[in-house]
Amino acid sequence: MLEARLGRAEAMLDIIALEARYARAWDSGDGNAWADVFTEDGVFEIAAVGDRPPLMVAGRDQLSDFCREFTAKFTGVHVPGLPLLEIEGDEATGHLHFQFVAIGRIAANHSMSRTACGQYDVRYRRTETGWRMLHRLEKAFSSTRSEFFDF
Amino acid sequence: MLEARLGRAEAMLDIIALEARYARAWDSGDGNAWADVFTEDGVFEIAAVGDRPPLMVAGRDQLSDFCREFTAKFTGVHVPGLPLLEIEGDEATGHLHFQFVAIGRIAANHSMSRTACGQYDVRYRRTETGWRMLHRLEKAFSSTRSEFFDF
Amino acid sequence: MLEARLGRAEAMLDIIALEARYARAWDSGDGNAWADVFTEDGVFEIAAVGDRPPLMVAGRDQLSDFCREFTAKFTGVHVPGLPLLEIEGDEATGHLHFQFVAIGRIAANHSMSRTACGQYDVRYRRTETGWRMLHRLEKAFSSTRSEFFDF
Repeated sequence: MLEARLGRAEAMLDIIALEARYARAWDSGDGNAWADVFTEDGVFEIAAVGDRPPLMVAGRDQLSDFCREFTAKFTGVHVPGLPLLEIEGDEATGHLHFQFVAIGRIAANHSMSRTACGQYDVRYRRTETGWRMLHRLEKAFSSTRSEFFDF
Repeated sequence: MLEARLGRAEAMLDIIALEARYARAWDSGDGNAWADVFTEDGVFEIAAVGDRPPLMVAGRDQLSDFCREFTAKFTGVHVPGLPLLEIEGDEATGHLHFQFVAIGRIAANHSMSRTACGQYDVRYRRTETGWRMLHRLEKAFSSTRSEFFDF
Repeated sequence: MLEARLGRAEAMLDIIALEARYARAWDSGDGNAWADVFTEDGVFEIAAVGDRPPLMVAGRDQLSDFCREFTAKFTGVHVPGLPLLEIEGDEATGHLHFQFVAIGRIAANHSMSRTACGQYDVRYRRTETGWRMLHRLEKAFSSTRSEFFDF
């Protein structure tokens, strides 16, 4: 009984750490560390908003490539807010908001800075090596962009 | 002894989830879900800052209306920071900082975007259905506003 | 066994509270409260970035003075994101991201506003009065500054 209650508290704390690891891995451009936050068959999705198409990346190899290619051009800092977590045995769901500040070097004479915020809806699964993300949906709410043309 | 310690940890995690629920409910414009974060007689206050008058909303019906009316015009994303919580039996206090990014449609040809940050001081009470907010004071520190006049 | 697991969960929650206390103490300009977040011989460092020199402040008296002198000119709000914590007995490490919004009165007719974000790498130690910071390294990623010359 105590153990079950403690297990739930530990799951919440482990998922908080997993969310922090997600932010750190992406922001340091470490594709493998970022992919490792997901399950083997984990999926990262970005919802279509405004005139932007949706995006879906599935599986650790693709996740790792996606992170590496993106962060080669755009580096930034995620600030993850407090999560709303619901634990059900070895499965969990989460909802949290974030801010992301980034700079990008689009070409030799074209750079930009961007501030975005939005929300994540996440499904987690407990694996033999700890909690991982099964599915993560990112939905941007705002994106403020400054571009610089260095002629 | 172990149970008392575990109870305190659970209270902290439940209040973290309550704070996340507050953000999610407001940002999805769900007046009833937002009011349900408070006790039946819960109070939401905004402190007077600069030339802005204070505001006070008390009781679930009024809280629900307040959220619905505000979010009909202004939609946004709250990013809640880590809270400083102090638990005393079935009562608790919290202090946390936040950022809020919003867009508003003030009239057909007048819209705006706004970024604000500030702090919350909160008193929580444990009820039969879990932790709720008895009193929440919001104090804005900054508000950056861009207005658009679409003539 | 259960007690060791609970101890780890409590350590994580206490460090989350310590991080919130760090933000609150600085943002309220309370030098002593801010210094008290560190151990007696605690060190706060800011990494060199861009053309900015590094900075190091060691020991509670110096930490308290540093906070008081800075906040006499610049007041602001820190929003700390979720931390990645690793606990090892009475020692711990943490990594978290933050946003900081500030206004400054540089001179009677010169003021500014600033939004910064970045990351912290922290080493914590459990003392007789609870967890404290042994070493905190702040690394800014971005700093957006608006200056106002009131002639």
